[in-house]
Amino acid sequence: MRIVVLAGGIGGARFLRGLKQAVPDADITVIGNTGDDIHLFGLKICPDLDTVMYTLGGGIDEEQGWGRTDETFHLKEELAAYGVGPEWFGLGDRDFATHIVRTQMLGAGFPLSAVTEALCDRWQPGVRLIPMTDDRVETHVAVTLPDSGSATGAGERKAVHFQEYWVRLRASVPAEAVVPVGAEQAKPAPGVLEAIAEADVILFPPSNPVVSVGTILAVPGIREAIADAGVPVIGLSPIVGDAPVRGMADKVLAAVGVESTAPAVAEHYGSGLLDGWLVDTVDAGCVERVEAAGIRCRAVPLMMTDVDAAARMAREALTLAEEVRAV
Amino acid sequence: MRIVVLAGGIGGARFLRGLKQAVPDADITVIGNTGDDIHLFGLKICPDLDTVMYTLGGGIDEEQGWGRTDETFHLKEELAAYGVGPEWFGLGDRDFATHIVRTQMLGAGFPLSAVTEALCDRWQPGVRLIPMTDDRVETHVAVTLPDSGSATGAGERKAVHFQEYWVRLRASVPAEAVVPVGAEQAKPAPGVLEAIAEADVILFPPSNPVVSVGTILAVPGIREAIADAGVPVIGLSPIVGDAPVRGMADKVLAAVGVESTAPAVAEHYGSGLLDGWLVDTVDAGCVERVEAAGIRCRAVPLMMTDVDAAARMAREALTLAEEVRAV
Repeated sequence: MRIVVLAGGIGGARFLRGLKQAVPDADITVIGNTGDDIHLFGLKICPDLDTVMYTLGGGIDEEQGWGRTDETFHLKEELAAYGVGPEWFGLGDRDFATHIVRTQMLGAGFPLSAVTEALCDRWQPGVRLIPMTDDRVETHVAVTLPDSGSATGAGERKAVHFQEYWVRLRASVPAEAVVPVGAEQAKPAPGVLEAIAEADVILFPPSNPVVSVGTILAVPGIREAIADAGVPVIGLSPIVGDAPVRGMADKVLAAVGVESTAPAVAEHYGSGLLDGWLVDTVDAGCVERVEAAGIRCRAVPLMMTDVDAAARMAREALTLAEEVRAV
Repeated sequence: MRIVVLAGGIGGARFLRGLKQAVPDADITVIGNTGDDIHLFGLKICPDLDTVMYTLGGGIDEEQGWGRTDETFHLKEELAAYGVGPEWFGLGDRDFATHIVRTQMLGAGFPLSAVTEALCDRWQPGVRLIPMTDDRVETHVAVTLPDSGSATGAGERKAVHFQEYWVRLRASVPAEAVVPVGAEQAKPAPGVLEAIAEADVILFPPSNPVVSVGTILAVPGIREAIADAGVPVIGLSPIVGDAPVRGMADKVLAAVGVESTAPAVAEHYGSGLLDGWLVDTVDAGCVERVEAAGIRCRAVPLMMTDVDAAARMAREALTLAEEVRAV
């Protein structure tokens, strides 16, 4: 079975670990979000790709869900001692190595997809991990920062990098707009469209529908390829009981005018793209609403408390795919 | 008192610490060797400048004499796990921060001298540290590597970076030539010639006469400025009892046809440059030979066992400078 998964960071990575357990013999291609990539200290950092790679490769910090296990932060401490920031972005000593290798390879002319393949040579994630694009796409968030003493009392409206919004500001101010800068000009990375065309099933894990899955779908050609693939496209709701399972998806959903509920996210993807949608059992009451939108829906437990729970979710998604296929 | 010191790495740095203790109110300018700089992992590394900066700023690993105290090597371990080398060059997690800040500033267009000043803002070494040049100079060593199975049995003659000769090969094969590549086209960094012209005394610490002090003197204008400064130029022998006090100076002295003895090194600098020379008490027998070469010479203890010993050596050097001046 050939499965394509569109993945963001922590949620996508944990779902993938469950999927691998559920169908160990499946041929899994992961299309990774690169919109949250950032350049810091002269290095190219790809948080979502790395989270998938570390999680599936056994190198992740299990508790926080990102970064390396057994990590130290001496380099970062020293950068701070030199007055070089930003201090709000957590880069550990082990993690730095990944960014150094990546930056060197990019500087030598390799595209990000080739670099990611080389990094995965070490981690052996058991899936084929491809960045959505080799081109630069950077998600920016328009915000109004609180007044810091201006005479007018008006706040400052500005666009900040997604990481600054997410990590530094902790999504504490409303996201007025979310723009994947560069996406319109980006081309899918080699292998992305081919994997979609050859897939037996396509899955949207419970990743952020705006800044993770949404950004991948913003690369011209990917949404169309998925809609045209003629195979079941199944998503899992990242919203359980009107709140994100983790992260702050509600903050960026508001920016695109979508309410923070499981059915609203399904409607946001739309029946032109999505064939099936899993909501949590607490949201069983909204199954009808989703099906009314032309999307087959089931209510199952969606809390990824451990790998077994994630595996059960993956199995439910594949079961729903079979139901869709049988129609 | 304005003192100019030409410094290499460990020997120069430890002498400078003694000098600061001996004359705390002196205005000390250090002209640092950059011939052993190396680019690794996309970063610009300046081992000698950093050894001086860390030693005088209280951040040095006292035991090994280079690198940072309280250091870890996680980043390097991870680079090795990615198969990215070289593994023979010891870069610690804390040390990496210095190279990242330096590389970013150089990339932003600042010359190395300005970058070094900025790094010293943090370390407050208590001296003005200037690289010998802002231009790229790279010391290469011509070697014949042992036969590794060729049909002819002949070794491979090649030029290796000084660090590869020194650190990887541990100077285990003869240095056939030592070439400061780029030195001929290099210009002294801003402040170098001015500091020499305004100095009351110029000191050559017990640094390597070929690859440290010799490389600095190879930058056109520096040797001439020192010879023309009209102030005492005093050196301390890095060779004690026919062997280098530390390091492998004998290996590179052979490459320039100089025997590894205290008087031979003085003659190598020459009376046109050097006014006074300190040899160790065990070499008292060669004072006459040095003086016959037109260089005033004294035999004093030259083992830098601790800061006090280095301070005594610095005082002896300044005393000899006064003797020279009084003539």
